[in-house]
Amino acid sequence: MEQHKMRIALLGMGTVGTGVVKLLREHYEIINMKTGLNVEVAKVLVRDASRSRPGLEDLPLTEEVNEILEDPSIQIVVELMGGIEPARSYMVAALRAGKTVVTANKDVVSEFGKDLYDAGDVGDAELYFEASVGGGIPVLRPLKESLSANKMQKVMGIVNGTTNYILTQMSQFGRPYEEALREAQALGYAEPDPTNDVQGFDAGRKLAILASIAFMSRVKPGMVYTEGITRITPRDIEYGKRFGWSVKLLAIGKEVDGQIEARVHPAFIASEHPLAAVAGSLNAIFAVGDPVGETMFYGRGAGAGPTASSVVGDLIAAALSKRTPGRRAGDACTCLFHKQVMDIGQVVSRYYLRLSCADQSGVLARIAEAFGAEDVSIANMVQGSGGPDREDTGEDAELVLVTHSVLEAKLQAVVRRLQSIPEVLAVENVIRVEA
Amino acid sequence: MEQHKMRIALLGMGTVGTGVVKLLREHYEIINMKTGLNVEVAKVLVRDASRSRPGLEDLPLTEEVNEILEDPSIQIVVELMGGIEPARSYMVAALRAGKTVVTANKDVVSEFGKDLYDAGDVGDAELYFEASVGGGIPVLRPLKESLSANKMQKVMGIVNGTTNYILTQMSQFGRPYEEALREAQALGYAEPDPTNDVQGFDAGRKLAILASIAFMSRVKPGMVYTEGITRITPRDIEYGKRFGWSVKLLAIGKEVDGQIEARVHPAFIASEHPLAAVAGSLNAIFAVGDPVGETMFYGRGAGAGPTASSVVGDLIAAALSKRTPGRRAGDACTCLFHKQVMDIGQVVSRYYLRLSCADQSGVLARIAEAFGAEDVSIANMVQGSGGPDREDTGEDAELVLVTHSVLEAKLQAVVRRLQSIPEVLAVENVIRVEA
Repeated sequence: MEQHKMRIALLGMGTVGTGVVKLLREHYEIINMKTGLNVEVAKVLVRDASRSRPGLEDLPLTEEVNEILEDPSIQIVVELMGGIEPARSYMVAALRAGKTVVTANKDVVSEFGKDLYDAGDVGDAELYFEASVGGGIPVLRPLKESLSANKMQKVMGIVNGTTNYILTQMSQFGRPYEEALREAQALGYAEPDPTNDVQGFDAGRKLAILASIAFMSRVKPGMVYTEGITRITPRDIEYGKRFGWSVKLLAIGKEVDGQIEARVHPAFIASEHPLAAVAGSLNAIFAVGDPVGETMFYGRGAGAGPTASSVVGDLIAAALSKRTPGRRAGDACTCLFHKQVMDIGQVVSRYYLRLSCADQSGVLARIAEAFGAEDVSIANMVQGSGGPDREDTGEDAELVLVTHSVLEAKLQAVVRRLQSIPEVLAVENVIRVEA
Repeated sequence: MEQHKMRIALLGMGTVGTGVVKLLREHYEIINMKTGLNVEVAKVLVRDASRSRPGLEDLPLTEEVNEILEDPSIQIVVELMGGIEPARSYMVAALRAGKTVVTANKDVVSEFGKDLYDAGDVGDAELYFEASVGGGIPVLRPLKESLSANKMQKVMGIVNGTTNYILTQMSQFGRPYEEALREAQALGYAEPDPTNDVQGFDAGRKLAILASIAFMSRVKPGMVYTEGITRITPRDIEYGKRFGWSVKLLAIGKEVDGQIEARVHPAFIASEHPLAAVAGSLNAIFAVGDPVGETMFYGRGAGAGPTASSVVGDLIAAALSKRTPGRRAGDACTCLFHKQVMDIGQVVSRYYLRLSCADQSGVLARIAEAFGAEDVSIANMVQGSGGPDREDTGEDAELVLVTHSVLEAKLQAVVRRLQSIPEVLAVENVIRVEA
């Protein structure tokens, strides 16, 4: 096979960067046989070139990004620094200079994806970002290319491994949230400051990318409604099991009548749903389109190896594309429409509500009245002064209600009504139920 | 966006062909917006052009393939006739004439894939066949492209919806095979002559394609060990459930020490395995690679809509590629190695055996001796004169044994020994257990 030399540069040499270099070395021969490519890591941008990097002493390190941006022999820049700046500026500069950019950076892609494509237009350069969503799972290219004939109706993903690990531990062993979080931290699945994961912000950025591609419109992270998992209790999970449900942090995008729903929140799903079986730190993206119907993409959503798999997969595609002049056909922003992202109040869903009530006669009637006043109909109710696994104290009662599909704004009005009933001691939790 | 006219021809106008035309019409605008393509169906080859085709009266039908092959304005040929001939000859002729071929034909691709690529070399033409495996599921392009940096270790799929529907019915409702088959036939999921599906031949062809791509070596259908589902009974399924297993018709490809395993047979898998949740007529392909780890691709494996999704997805990629001269980089046969396909006797697996025995003392010792003589160790045993759901007749006993991992040849030797023990009335079933 014809041999092609390809000089690339890496920006950043953390866990993923190390994984990428390792993969390029270990699979050098296999990549060369498949593609005829000789990939040479010509420069690696690091903050401190003097730091010891065992096994990587021969890498050509630099602390000066211009050594990369101004080197015309470097054709592809792989950005693995993370965070917005300086990653964004470096990528824009590389693209404007005609260099293809491969990135795993969900922060920049979700917020500034259009700007990156625009910079690529200036330099006639390509952009690849499979690793920014779902780690090693091939999902963005399949959505964009294999499923390109479809009108996508829904994407629904478990795209954050930390929260899925925590919820799986809570579900399987009845552990409270705080305990499961500490365990995830001890195992390195959760950061010392877990906010970004447990509040759903990480998942929100990935959903922004998924929804932008699926619905061909710009969805930015700020447009995504986001709610974390910190209020989920083993008690809610137990009630869910009674109804045949599992709880997951879902990133949900839908197109409804030309408008987009984009929301990240914990939700109950039927235990038979393929997403319900996605356990531990695994990820999966479920997508529904016309005419393909249901599809799902499953695998490791994080970690050096899986992420490097996607980065180097992109790198190979990028390098193959460099063989022919111009950009790969179809390498363009999919944001062709300007569809409105709906306010969470406009979303239609089913809801699970858990209430603590004084154990007095007439309470149930007042609660039913609150639902009736907003035209919200109740599909299911479980009453017990104890509830599952709890001793009957004889003092306050617990009530779990599940609604039929209803506008979120109406449900919120019901909640306000419930909170004004003196015998309703607390609306302990409200959790959406996905079909 | 720049507009490109693309004249294509269809070979065959059955269910899938109709689905493709319908999709091209219904999503004309969306495809045009995404790609700038105006796809025009210039010719459709049919056997009988005079037949009435409601809603498709305006299609330019022909009974003469040369009107397509010799028309230089037709750049892409979509083959949807099925079967080997004349589909193979037409595709070879089209490729040699420089026309890109998109096909859903697993028979031709699995048997003559290399010949098609060779014909493409002659005409500098491309070949696309996503729809040949897994219907609407994007799996071949992700394997070939997104996961190209990996060394694949395993592909394991549920790639035949008919048999998965039958086994799901048997598992959920305890139905015997014959009854579930009749139901599948009544619903149109199974053919009047179901041999191709229930004996695993259809899955074998799809595995040949999957394994060829995953392991970069030629695996032809004749090299795939194939065993059907006709001997599975509700009784085996019940025992499996006791062990925490589900039964599936699995298409399994592995690379072990540079050799390939390629086999289709019913197998027990752990109920927690992501493939276990793939129910009814759905398909999924589970793949393991280094460094990506576990991945899975799930969706509708058949039907006009899902198949058309893959065909038109390929068609769009093909048309975009036609914009630039030459072939798309990476469009080549992956059969770069010549790896041996192992004989089934060389395969290592765990096995479930169900025996009928005379209820006499000393039988168990003789059975254990048969295993011991071949160095096959038993991991688990369930004994009962009745077995699950059966009345104790006091006459013959049933014994279920599960082995540790062992060479298939040794297991077969054990079976021969068991069959020569007079008190072993029958080796009722032997089913492989996948880890």
